[in-house]
Amino acid sequence: MAGSEWASLEQCLEKHLPLGDLQEVKRVLYGKETRKLDLPRRALEAALEGDFELQGYAFEAAKEQQRRPRIVRVGLIQNKILLPTSAPVAEQVSALHRRIEAMAEVAATCGVNIICFQEAWTMPFAFCTREKLPWTEFAESAEDGLTTRFCQKLAKKHNMVVVSPILERDREHGGVLWNTAVVISNSGAVLGKSRKNHIPRVGDFNESTYYMEGNLGHPVFQTQFGRIAVNICYGRHHPLNWLMYSVNGAEIIFNPSATIGELSESLWPIEARNAAIANHCFTCAINRVGQELFPNEFTSGDGKKAHRDFGYFYGSSYVAAPDGSRTPGLSRNQDGLLVAELDLNLCQQMSDIWSFKMTGRYEMYAQELAEAVRPNYTPTVVREDPTSKPACPSGLGGEHRP
Amino acid sequence: MAGSEWASLEQCLEKHLPLGDLQEVKRVLYGKETRKLDLPRRALEAALEGDFELQGYAFEAAKEQQRRPRIVRVGLIQNKILLPTSAPVAEQVSALHRRIEAMAEVAATCGVNIICFQEAWTMPFAFCTREKLPWTEFAESAEDGLTTRFCQKLAKKHNMVVVSPILERDREHGGVLWNTAVVISNSGAVLGKSRKNHIPRVGDFNESTYYMEGNLGHPVFQTQFGRIAVNICYGRHHPLNWLMYSVNGAEIIFNPSATIGELSESLWPIEARNAAIANHCFTCAINRVGQELFPNEFTSGDGKKAHRDFGYFYGSSYVAAPDGSRTPGLSRNQDGLLVAELDLNLCQQMSDIWSFKMTGRYEMYAQELAEAVRPNYTPTVVREDPTSKPACPSGLGGEHRP
Repeated sequence: MAGSEWASLEQCLEKHLPLGDLQEVKRVLYGKETRKLDLPRRALEAALEGDFELQGYAFEAAKEQQRRPRIVRVGLIQNKILLPTSAPVAEQVSALHRRIEAMAEVAATCGVNIICFQEAWTMPFAFCTREKLPWTEFAESAEDGLTTRFCQKLAKKHNMVVVSPILERDREHGGVLWNTAVVISNSGAVLGKSRKNHIPRVGDFNESTYYMEGNLGHPVFQTQFGRIAVNICYGRHHPLNWLMYSVNGAEIIFNPSATIGELSESLWPIEARNAAIANHCFTCAINRVGQELFPNEFTSGDGKKAHRDFGYFYGSSYVAAPDGSRTPGLSRNQDGLLVAELDLNLCQQMSDIWSFKMTGRYEMYAQELAEAVRPNYTPTVVREDPTSKPACPSGLGGEHRP
Repeated sequence: MAGSEWASLEQCLEKHLPLGDLQEVKRVLYGKETRKLDLPRRALEAALEGDFELQGYAFEAAKEQQRRPRIVRVGLIQNKILLPTSAPVAEQVSALHRRIEAMAEVAATCGVNIICFQEAWTMPFAFCTREKLPWTEFAESAEDGLTTRFCQKLAKKHNMVVVSPILERDREHGGVLWNTAVVISNSGAVLGKSRKNHIPRVGDFNESTYYMEGNLGHPVFQTQFGRIAVNICYGRHHPLNWLMYSVNGAEIIFNPSATIGELSESLWPIEARNAAIANHCFTCAINRVGQELFPNEFTSGDGKKAHRDFGYFYGSSYVAAPDGSRTPGLSRNQDGLLVAELDLNLCQQMSDIWSFKMTGRYEMYAQELAEAVRPNYTPTVVREDPTSKPACPSGLGGEHRP
């Protein structure tokens, strides 16, 4: 199927499984159950009226003596585009601003402290077309573009940190494009930005035609509500990208994305969740929803006929915790706001239990990677021929031969 | 529950879900469906008689013009210990040798080319006790111990590569212990060994009391059937460990493990599978089964009363492919042999599609990690206070301030 006909894994399991089995399935699939949040009635009503799903869950941590609980509520928004992709650029942007403004209002009612929108949220995901105009006209200054100013107002109004992933036009560096997340403090000030570190060359994700690999490293943003980072889309396939945000201290890593059913749906529940486990942090995976049709047909390098649609964006946004537990996903076919209450103390607690950073041997890996990227690197391969000697990287000691 | 009462996720889903929904659930959970292997009747009969589960699945790759399919069958064995842990060491080892010999015989009947046993397969997982004798008496020479000689015979008889994870006594280096996998060629020769690179300090996994972090780096073994590596147990939580085996060319990475329900069951389907996706290789996750009781009681650092059992080893061994698909797991409560037919061409095919190695920016990460391990490292943290300047690692360019 992989289209909109099927709402979600969780809804299906809840419908068919007897309670005892459902509990076991959830335990094996999701770990410790997350508590359902009791959200304000007027938020639920507004969501119903606004035709979007609203779900809320809480992750808990153990009580400590020396630290208070560090409770923060994050909001993840997934949404369809609103106007046809042939509508004037300014109208498309404006319609999305209005939609997100309304959804953020509900998030505020739910007490959300940090909100994150989907990747390139002000535009259709037009990189499949390989056309430049009009799509590059969606690009804006990260520092003072229309969308950043919109988000600053939102942040100030709701006392909310806003993570706003946009197509950036970088006027200070030759006017090039970047795929960038702007982080806006709850004060309304632009705190900084984070750029997509890994650019796909897969399927219709022709993004390398538009912008290059990010050059800002792995910044972490100290907000009033905790230390956050943004790993944009394809960076979720790269464990080292998550790791470096975590090494720099991120407690919550947002992963605003745009990905489609045929390509990635079975990978989606795995990667961000693995990152939460491996890095003792919370991860928030956000995907857009629905089908986007473009004015001109294009081919996809798969031998199939030219077409005008970019697969099916399957939503399914979720939050994963450092203990490996996770929320259910938002639906595959509807706009949605996922509210998750996190106790950030869980990060250090899980780190103290599992100790992946302490046992990570990063010094060894820094050496091994530095060797491995050299043009003359010889991989450590052990062969049966007794005259061959295995290469021995980083002076770690040779392989003992029989 | 987390005990033996519940057989497996897959059995539960197949029992309760209508066919259409089952297909969607499997698609979202497991990706492309694996084909069931038609195993020889006499293997199925032998498994029934030997009271162990036998399952077989095949992963397929696209046809290529310039390479033939590179078909290999791997066998994963999960098993309970056989004698009480109070039985004489030699008898316990001997009983396990006989059991594995019989299961390997069935694997041979199924055409298995490479077989891997569970972690420390010749012994109970006694590290929970923190006692030395008699458990350290299970340690053997990797090069010419009783178990290695047993495996050499097995390998030669069945023309099968054998991966034999044991507790190693290293006589050449002061007689210390290691957690080691011995790799034996199908010729019967000891090809080499791989040591556990990351040692846990979690729950009852008191292994750091017995042996240290491996010093052999990330060797890959060129066998007649493909390039293999062994990431032992706790190394599965460390994405860099998987990565370096893959950088050295591993097409199949075995993960012989011993892990229990309460600690890790919801992480189990995530980590090895994420590694298969992230590294464009096959991963084979093997866990032991059942409950092990020890002669003397011990506590677990969890405030609970002293006890004699080491949790519940939940089996659930599985194989994951580079396209993110996976086999169902073996059961949670029974000995089992999982046969998986792999077309190793799928590794390069998925690498060419997704390009994670090409887009991995390892040079940047080698630099960033080298910086991050320095005692005076300052994480890249962006703060709102305009007088603070974010640190800028590796000359990657500073954070642009608003």
